[in-house]
Amino acid sequence: MKLMLMAGSMRKDSVNKKLVALAAAYLRELGIDAEIKEFADYDHPLYHGDIETEKGLPVNVQQFIHDMREFDGFIFAVPEYNFSVAGSFKNFFDWVSRAKPMPWMRTKVLLLSASPALPGGIRGLWQLRVPFEGCGAFVFPDMFALGNAYNAFDPKGHLIDKGLEERLEALLKEFVSFVEKF
Amino acid sequence: MKLMLMAGSMRKDSVNKKLVALAAAYLRELGIDAEIKEFADYDHPLYHGDIETEKGLPVNVQQFIHDMREFDGFIFAVPEYNFSVAGSFKNFFDWVSRAKPMPWMRTKVLLLSASPALPGGIRGLWQLRVPFEGCGAFVFPDMFALGNAYNAFDPKGHLIDKGLEERLEALLKEFVSFVEKF
Amino acid sequence: MKLMLMAGSMRKDSVNKKLVALAAAYLRELGIDAEIKEFADYDHPLYHGDIETEKGLPVNVQQFIHDMREFDGFIFAVPEYNFSVAGSFKNFFDWVSRAKPMPWMRTKVLLLSASPALPGGIRGLWQLRVPFEGCGAFVFPDMFALGNAYNAFDPKGHLIDKGLEERLEALLKEFVSFVEKF
Amino acid sequence: MKLMLMAGSMRKDSVNKKLVALAAAYLRELGIDAEIKEFADYDHPLYHGDIETEKGLPVNVQQFIHDMREFDGFIFAVPEYNFSVAGSFKNFFDWVSRAKPMPWMRTKVLLLSASPALPGGIRGLWQLRVPFEGCGAFVFPDMFALGNAYNAFDPKGHLIDKGLEERLEALLKEFVSFVEKF
Repeated sequence: MKLMLMAGSMRKDSVNKKLVALAAAYLRELGIDAEIKEFADYDHPLYHGDIETEKGLPVNVQQFIHDMREFDGFIFAVPEYNFSVAGSFKNFFDWVSRAKPMPWMRTKVLLLSASPALPGGIRGLWQLRVPFEGCGAFVFPDMFALGNAYNAFDPKGHLIDKGLEERLEALLKEFVSFVEKF
Repeated sequence: MKLMLMAGSMRKDSVNKKLVALAAAYLRELGIDAEIKEFADYDHPLYHGDIETEKGLPVNVQQFIHDMREFDGFIFAVPEYNFSVAGSFKNFFDWVSRAKPMPWMRTKVLLLSASPALPGGIRGLWQLRVPFEGCGAFVFPDMFALGNAYNAFDPKGHLIDKGLEERLEALLKEFVSFVEKF
Repeated sequence: MKLMLMAGSMRKDSVNKKLVALAAAYLRELGIDAEIKEFADYDHPLYHGDIETEKGLPVNVQQFIHDMREFDGFIFAVPEYNFSVAGSFKNFFDWVSRAKPMPWMRTKVLLLSASPALPGGIRGLWQLRVPFEGCGAFVFPDMFALGNAYNAFDPKGHLIDKGLEERLEALLKEFVSFVEKF
Repeated sequence: MKLMLMAGSMRKDSVNKKLVALAAAYLRELGIDAEIKEFADYDHPLYHGDIETEKGLPVNVQQFIHDMREFDGFIFAVPEYNFSVAGSFKNFFDWVSRAKPMPWMRTKVLLLSASPALPGGIRGLWQLRVPFEGCGAFVFPDMFALGNAYNAFDPKGHLIDKGLEERLEALLKEFVSFVEKF
């Protein structure tokens, strides 16, 4: 099984990237081929219908759609901006959705979010489910929202709250079994 | 009273632009100073936390925030992408929200949407309320979703369905009175 | 495989019941053991925390939780009231959720909705996903919203729009395969 | 100005009732005529379309609609059940919405929520806005979610966290000015 992990943030020290790194490390312990992709490597413009008509999808978006094919499941850690999905990640999602056949259709997806705020992005996660599910993805019911994220990691990248890390691990394990079975 | 109207689409023949033009024409009949702004004139990059830290807000975003000050209310016609808010407009919204004090706070906002699909963007509109209201805007309860929009306008830019155009006009009138009173 | 179907409406001539009957008939053609349950047979009071503390769950709610055990998957056709989930069905959902272990956890669920209005309940369906998924259910990504439902059925209970009925059948077939595999 | 306050919970020791009592006390300090209504006093059955057709709205629902007329604004403190609006309150909301003209139309509403969980009901509050706004109510953009509510009150009914109580007071003050002006 091969899983793609990507943080929906371009920031160098993004807490969502840290969360992705932690998840990938654990998945590798489980023997999973877990590959981290960088959102910044798929740089792309704002969606513009006329650009699409004239030139088609941006090269990096096409690359991502091509890359998707190797993977059995996807883990996205997306920041919450303004109580809702990060516009930058949604813009990327929208570009990808323009390909035919719909690349998100019947993908298996796990959603995570890290945030410096206490609720940890749970409002954004619920908003983020909508486009994924609307485009036909199986979004795993449970999600993981890491609050107070600037103070949540120890220097080695583990969560200081061990109980929380165990919850994340249990979720990853169950997601793996979901991708396997279905 | 001065109202800003903007379509959250860069496409040249955008149906959301047509909807904005129709709304502006009617507002002017009411004696309102209705000014249309072009989303494409505020071109800006994807949100990137490091760029913000190093260089601050993009010049065009600063310009928009500056322009906002002249207006008593805002009418946005935003396309629905994938059952949710258009990522490109949300990305713009997110940039604007980074200024202090919060530019969206206590603004009065009316939301419209035009879409080639039958439901006319009603799913996107309900998702779009969330960041506006989360940032403290008064979003008028009623919204206007124009379905089947590629076939909805006559050559002069009016709605072929007269009853629908009357509903839009009644909504605009009530929004004006909301902005006036409050 | 055994599937439960239930309309989240007590009305005798409920269009959601008609939709459930049509779905059940098709599932039986597929060789599935499809059993229709009546919401009205599980009559129960409004949720009241003190009643729960004193007397536990209402008998009918306990009966439903007991009945759930025989089924591999669940199809609910729930009306939209006021742009949102029907309060009466949500009240039932809330009662059920008070049992331990959580009865909704890891159930496989397909959501339908019929409505006299044109959008057919798509706003309510998106709101209804939230409690199900929050309680750990696998809600199938695609849903089926039947608009203009008072005029949608022929005297034999089929949809007058044959293309629409084929879409429903394809959805049911895919849901069956989802329940089977996972 | 006269404001109605009601907790959307029937439980005797409801934390939402405590929140309502605290809000009412502060409003009276401001010279506002703040009247607390008890949800349990408006006891009513589950919504049932046939009952409505045969007997019309339940007496208590009619009473509530009648009572609404004296008030300039409404403050509801509604518990979150299962990441969403409490079904029991939504059931009440649905009954009320069946009267003509729509009783919720253009009401001014402030939403609060108290919850033993950490996020304090913020997910339910965002779901609760939808039916109110869909029915034409002006829901104040800011809301108040009291987390960890079993440990939040001192014996006199004040919040132990003084900063939080000041935030609530500021919100109530601004809501009063909203009701006044508009």
